[in-house]
Amino acid sequence: MDTYKILKIKKSVYESNAQEAQRLRGKLKEDGVFLLNLMSSPGSGKTATLVRTIAALKNELRIGVLEADIDSDVDARTVLNAGAKAIQLHTGGMCHLDAGMTGQGLVGLGTEGLDLVFLENVGNLICTASFDTGAVKNAMILSVPEGDDKPLKYPHMFEVVEVVLVNKIDAISFFDFDLEVFRQRVARLNPKAKIIPISAKTGDGIGDWTDWIRYEVRRWKSREEE
Amino acid sequence: MDTYKILKIKKSVYESNAQEAQRLRGKLKEDGVFLLNLMSSPGSGKTATLVRTIAALKNELRIGVLEADIDSDVDARTVLNAGAKAIQLHTGGMCHLDAGMTGQGLVGLGTEGLDLVFLENVGNLICTASFDTGAVKNAMILSVPEGDDKPLKYPHMFEVVEVVLVNKIDAISFFDFDLEVFRQRVARLNPKAKIIPISAKTGDGIGDWTDWIRYEVRRWKSREEE
Repeated sequence: MDTYKILKIKKSVYESNAQEAQRLRGKLKEDGVFLLNLMSSPGSGKTATLVRTIAALKNELRIGVLEADIDSDVDARTVLNAGAKAIQLHTGGMCHLDAGMTGQGLVGLGTEGLDLVFLENVGNLICTASFDTGAVKNAMILSVPEGDDKPLKYPHMFEVVEVVLVNKIDAISFFDFDLEVFRQRVARLNPKAKIIPISAKTGDGIGDWTDWIRYEVRRWKSREEE
Repeated sequence: MDTYKILKIKKSVYESNAQEAQRLRGKLKEDGVFLLNLMSSPGSGKTATLVRTIAALKNELRIGVLEADIDSDVDARTVLNAGAKAIQLHTGGMCHLDAGMTGQGLVGLGTEGLDLVFLENVGNLICTASFDTGAVKNAMILSVPEGDDKPLKYPHMFEVVEVVLVNKIDAISFFDFDLEVFRQRVARLNPKAKIIPISAKTGDGIGDWTDWIRYEVRRWKSREEE
């Protein structure tokens, strides 16, 4: 597992993304693979967070990563070095992934024997939120320097996720970010969303995040019915 | 000028965005209005930068702002208080503005008597870069916490702009951002791009940015031919 492929993603051929997403989740259930879609703005720390997460879980779970990017390869190398199986997906100019594109990525990666696959989605708070990728769960990262007003401006993203990681929490004293106000703004859009402050730099909060992942992976693999 | 309108932007009806963008620039030239398209990720500090910019220029230039957002109004109020004429554009779910949509915004704002109009584009490093809005010039903000690798990951954005503002430069010691490496990465994509480090928080570098704006507005208003 010391190399990675680069796959150019093609536009999906499926008429209904909703149907294709359901089909993909069915296949993942059969195979016992938990696919977690991770979304954020550019530069919020998705890759650094994944590196921390892989380090914390790699002795218990076999992990793969779909690295979606417009056209660079820097992230696949990084997560590979962290100890995950990885594939780099080049989306061309496309600003999001749908279920068909995600399916291409899973085939390219090869999911046999994997327990957990992260889809590191394209850095975009708008388009990515509008497409069901077929993932079992959706999570997002909002970093402290981006500001606590983002739920007001990108509401749909906050509505579709189950977890909001608030990254770069170690920088909170430097920026004008009110965690309590942020919590209230998210709760107004999505009362069930779990908010976890983390620092991918220091490791703070990563334990809470990996506890959630462990619990969800176990549930996904054990339940007869979803 | 103490109120602002909210305008729901419709999809463009024009077949060719390139033609519509040229038509719009012709009209702006006739009217002596300089339209500057400002793009960035969510949370890079577009609005705070605009507030600083308006404060520095409002005694010399009559300024308007098109505030494009998925659906909030927080920014229009802020720039209005800073001393600019403003209109809030709601794009629905749309992740970019094209020339037709920008034209609707300019009509809604009313550009008579204005020298300079900022289009505060939707927070998105991907989609916005692919559409000519009809603006005279394009600029972008990349904030220090986003990281110096962004030219590798969002190359098209760095290719289409004339100015890259590097905001939150006051936080550079806190983050792992190498300004020289960043300059080299931008230069490889776009050797003519002007890189200006700023802090919207402290005001550092705003003078260099407003010098560039002053020069370009004067040029636009004085030249017979573009």
